[in-house]
Amino acid sequence: GVNPDLASERQTASFSVEKLTAWLDGGAEHTRIRRAVVEAIQSDPIFSRENQYFQSQNERYEAAVRKAVHLQKKMREMGWTENGPEYKYIYRALSGDVALLLQRVFKRSISVLGSEKQIAKWIPLATQYQIIGSYAQTELGHGTYLQGLETTAVFDVSTQEFILNTPTVSAMKWWPGDMGRSATHTVVFAQLYIHGKCYGVHPFIVQIRSLQDHSLCPGVTAGDIGPKMSFEHADNGYLMLQKVRVPRENMLNKFCEVQPDGTYVTRGSEKINYFPMTTVRISIISDEVIIPLMKACTIAIRYSVVRRQSKLKPGEQEAKILDYQTQQEKLLPQLAAAYAFHFINNYLQELLDRGYREIQRKNFEPLPELHAFSSGFKAMVTQYCTSAVEICLRACGGHGYSLLSGLPSLYTKILASCIYEGENTVLLLQTARFLIKCFMAASAGQPIPPSVAYLAAVNAGKCPAKNKLDFLRPDIYTEAYRHTAVRLISSVVAKLQDLIHSGVKKYDAWNQCTVQLVQAAKAHCHYISVVNFAETVEKLETKPDIQKIMKHLCDLFALHGIFSNAGVFLHDEYISGAQMDVATASYLDLLAVIRKDAVPLVDAFDFTDKTLNSALGSYDGQVYQRLYEWAQKSPTNKQISPSYEKYLKPLLHNTLSKL
Amino acid sequence: GVNPDLASERQTASFSVEKLTAWLDGGAEHTRIRRAVVEAIQSDPIFSRENQYFQSQNERYEAAVRKAVHLQKKMREMGWTENGPEYKYIYRALSGDVALLLQRVFKRSISVLGSEKQIAKWIPLATQYQIIGSYAQTELGHGTYLQGLETTAVFDVSTQEFILNTPTVSAMKWWPGDMGRSATHTVVFAQLYIHGKCYGVHPFIVQIRSLQDHSLCPGVTAGDIGPKMSFEHADNGYLMLQKVRVPRENMLNKFCEVQPDGTYVTRGSEKINYFPMTTVRISIISDEVIIPLMKACTIAIRYSVVRRQSKLKPGEQEAKILDYQTQQEKLLPQLAAAYAFHFINNYLQELLDRGYREIQRKNFEPLPELHAFSSGFKAMVTQYCTSAVEICLRACGGHGYSLLSGLPSLYTKILASCIYEGENTVLLLQTARFLIKCFMAASAGQPIPPSVAYLAAVNAGKCPAKNKLDFLRPDIYTEAYRHTAVRLISSVVAKLQDLIHSGVKKYDAWNQCTVQLVQAAKAHCHYISVVNFAETVEKLETKPDIQKIMKHLCDLFALHGIFSNAGVFLHDEYISGAQMDVATASYLDLLAVIRKDAVPLVDAFDFTDKTLNSALGSYDGQVYQRLYEWAQKSPTNKQISPSYEKYLKPLLHNTLSKL
Repeated sequence: GVNPDLASERQTASFSVEKLTAWLDGGAEHTRIRRAVVEAIQSDPIFSRENQYFQSQNERYEAAVRKAVHLQKKMREMGWTENGPEYKYIYRALSGDVALLLQRVFKRSISVLGSEKQIAKWIPLATQYQIIGSYAQTELGHGTYLQGLETTAVFDVSTQEFILNTPTVSAMKWWPGDMGRSATHTVVFAQLYIHGKCYGVHPFIVQIRSLQDHSLCPGVTAGDIGPKMSFEHADNGYLMLQKVRVPRENMLNKFCEVQPDGTYVTRGSEKINYFPMTTVRISIISDEVIIPLMKACTIAIRYSVVRRQSKLKPGEQEAKILDYQTQQEKLLPQLAAAYAFHFINNYLQELLDRGYREIQRKNFEPLPELHAFSSGFKAMVTQYCTSAVEICLRACGGHGYSLLSGLPSLYTKILASCIYEGENTVLLLQTARFLIKCFMAASAGQPIPPSVAYLAAVNAGKCPAKNKLDFLRPDIYTEAYRHTAVRLISSVVAKLQDLIHSGVKKYDAWNQCTVQLVQAAKAHCHYISVVNFAETVEKLETKPDIQKIMKHLCDLFALHGIFSNAGVFLHDEYISGAQMDVATASYLDLLAVIRKDAVPLVDAFDFTDKTLNSALGSYDGQVYQRLYEWAQKSPTNKQISPSYEKYLKPLLHNTLSKL
Repeated sequence: GVNPDLASERQTASFSVEKLTAWLDGGAEHTRIRRAVVEAIQSDPIFSRENQYFQSQNERYEAAVRKAVHLQKKMREMGWTENGPEYKYIYRALSGDVALLLQRVFKRSISVLGSEKQIAKWIPLATQYQIIGSYAQTELGHGTYLQGLETTAVFDVSTQEFILNTPTVSAMKWWPGDMGRSATHTVVFAQLYIHGKCYGVHPFIVQIRSLQDHSLCPGVTAGDIGPKMSFEHADNGYLMLQKVRVPRENMLNKFCEVQPDGTYVTRGSEKINYFPMTTVRISIISDEVIIPLMKACTIAIRYSVVRRQSKLKPGEQEAKILDYQTQQEKLLPQLAAAYAFHFINNYLQELLDRGYREIQRKNFEPLPELHAFSSGFKAMVTQYCTSAVEICLRACGGHGYSLLSGLPSLYTKILASCIYEGENTVLLLQTARFLIKCFMAASAGQPIPPSVAYLAAVNAGKCPAKNKLDFLRPDIYTEAYRHTAVRLISSVVAKLQDLIHSGVKKYDAWNQCTVQLVQAAKAHCHYISVVNFAETVEKLETKPDIQKIMKHLCDLFALHGIFSNAGVFLHDEYISGAQMDVATASYLDLLAVIRKDAVPLVDAFDFTDKTLNSALGSYDGQVYQRLYEWAQKSPTNKQISPSYEKYLKPLLHNTLSKL
């Protein structure tokens, strides 16, 4: 049965959970498809995650490979295809821990960078898993800065081959997924040399393991880079190439080619090279960042109405910890953020779709905007959600710290999203560069993209809010965010110009402004998130119950941001200290309002118990029973430790006579 | 050899590293003793941590037990005793991962709560490891709130025994260290019942495992609670007691006793019961919190001068990442905090020593102050240092995420310090309660402890700073912190009183103020940390070089706090927006100053490579070589995965014909 403390929370929902779920999914039809996929995957024992928390790195890897191979079979059985409506739910239903994911990246890089002939040769092999692909870009000593890569590919006219070589330890390829133990092929990025001249970084298809017995190919050294903070199942690898030869045809040559005599030819626009990175950054936001936060909120909020601790009122029983203001203030803003970022993901998808349509018409104008938005939001959302998951974990006290809560593995995995696909500080600085360009263009009366048109509006005045209700007005708080974003951007522009005018070199001036540039880029993303949430709420007029609770969450998201970043709003007295007190009061009042619907709001995310894989977060709230049952399954309880015989027995053996 | 990029950093130190080390240690003699202990421990292969990152939970446990037992032998050999000057360095030299640590807690609870007779019986047995003790207080459903414990101990007059019982699943003891697999005895906290009447929670010594064969005693169910986010080596356990009988003599009875006829007698002051908790909270700060942060700073800063990434100036080689302002702003404030908290630890030790002297004179007056300070600083320092270690980890990008960097295990372990020995929010609220009492007393003209005398001073005016140099004046910034702490405390007092006057019940009013009470308690601790740092610097006049660099760190610690919590300083315009810009400029300038001495400042922490156990942080800076060497040792590279034969070969076996 359901724990009565949890059950009572569901009886007072102010809205229909099922309707909210359907709306979040984009319609009841999508909910139906999603649930069917989840059911099909989770009823198949090969996809079970039951013992995951007890497995070693080796066991996790083996299970992940098994799942990857079985998934192909499952997809055929179920009639699911890469273009079908089910596809996007499969990975989510698996909840990670599946191997051979780099196959997708391998294929995408060939599709984007390869010629028709190359595509025809390699894509079918990869699709049918007759080869296993990886993607070898990052080196031990080189990450974000691609020009710094050290691996070389020297063209040998006499044999019509490229000779790939790793000249130093720091030039070793390092981190590529599926490369440590699985891959047979990989795309290697290397500095191209022809007749002694360097032509910069280019991609080459290189076979690294035998198709006969999986042994390493001649000249290839490869292996697993060892344990990481998470991703135990993944064989992130290293790769050293000692004069490995590949045929001329193995350089991906849609945009440039080396002809038989060594002539180097380029064709088409290289701008498009940014586009795949942009789509990847946006594609990770939902599955790797927002969904983990939604899971963490579900676990922490359900647990916080089951867990009782101390007394709120003398003489009564111990209180549910979610009834403490401090616990509400920890968890509910994270819940509001999960919703906010779900809507930002929709916003980014639309931006991307619009941009893609333009690009297909050979209009590359939207690329800088797309790049800036995908970079900034990737950084802002991953950072925000990582902190949010950590808050959820800490808010569950000791039990949150147990792997069985599911929270530590959510945290250690989401943390990686701050690092991969572009380091966040580097990304925010790219966003800042775009914003500054747009701000300068707007100041000069030139046109700028609609998404940043706000930079052009007049920025003065004071916040007009007079009471707590005023701070629940989206026009009031979005204007406060807008004002602040513009102020931060304009003041860093002023600082930059001052420095340059005073004789500081441009690159030095830039470096001296980077802390503030990062702050400005974050303020931009925060502003867009708030506006987008408010607009999403506005469009909900046909669903008044859902609109009402979403409005509360939008207010909370906005006011939490003002409360936690008070300095940037108070700085030029746009919001006065007295107004800040009113905003804080409004914010704290909201916590108590949303607390009533907290459980229905996480139920609406519609995670199955198997998806959550958490002793604290299951739908029935049988927290203590489940912790005990799961703990008993631990291998530490199944084997008698040899430590007793070896180390303890000699100490204890003649104690009895003394007792 | 040493990496030249790292070597060059050491040639320009503005002070003698050896002198700074000696000063931090409290004198060269202490440095000598510490190094001797480290050398003796780390040259002994049984204490090696070389393969730690590759070990399973079972292997970690076994190694930890082995170390614990070997340590006794080592101490005898070396002539180290629990009261000797070496003792405090032993655990530090081991860097954790040693079992049977609960023996100390078991002994301390008997020493403090037991009678002379009980001490005479149990302490020698535990000291000689003829029994292995644990400490069973926390239950599955009950943590901080001791009154809520459900385990019962019913006195049976007829047999002169207590019957200990676990009435529900949530009453199971859960989390105690060494209890899952090792302990033979434990101190169980249970509700005492005599003739049907409950006398509250009392401690009982209970044997849980046979001394003959280590099997569980009749009526006892115990085991390991399963994997956690860290502490893989520790067998945190669960314990269920089904009508387990212990003799009347097993209730620890220094302060209260059950006489043979069932009469309950109390004696002495129970106030002293808080004292052990206070000492434990202070004792963890150094070894479990500050030293891990010092290690993380050492690793991240050394790596940041070896790692090169992108170009700062066109045409030059790639820049050391520590030359980027954003990287300085990530790491250097954490370095300053490590120093600040090292000094706060000294402050707390002095406070504790003074308090202890009073208590020995039967003066219990310092207890509330000690309790408030130990609670607040435990919470503030653990939270700050946990975030700081996470920043260090993230600042090392992908390589920081590898377990081989040492940073993930520092992070996952320090995170627990926010939870154990009192959950931080609960602790900060206790500090807040004390501050409010003192504030009210001061307002009423009553005496308050010197440590909080600042609450009584007049609080008005504006910050007098006019330029960047003014913000490097300790009198200016400490006054800003003082002003802010007093404002936050006085305004939450006003809110509390308003609520109560408007008819809100006292406990409701308290709950509605808790978010702001926590903020006020943190501001208090931050203020004391800054003042204490400034006073420490002042006393350094005989060591001008060290004083100079410590002054820079003190300024950085203070200005970082103002920059990151700008809202609380701007709120009442004590600092204006224009002044905040000046403070920010001063803060950013300082980063470039301290950056020059960053490596010597971490070298002075004097960690050996074996202590750091980090591929990124070693003294010689051979980062890439070491990552590669260590990765090769991973068991994933030593065994051929059965996955190839089982899952991949069937896919790949007829690819060759198609290539």
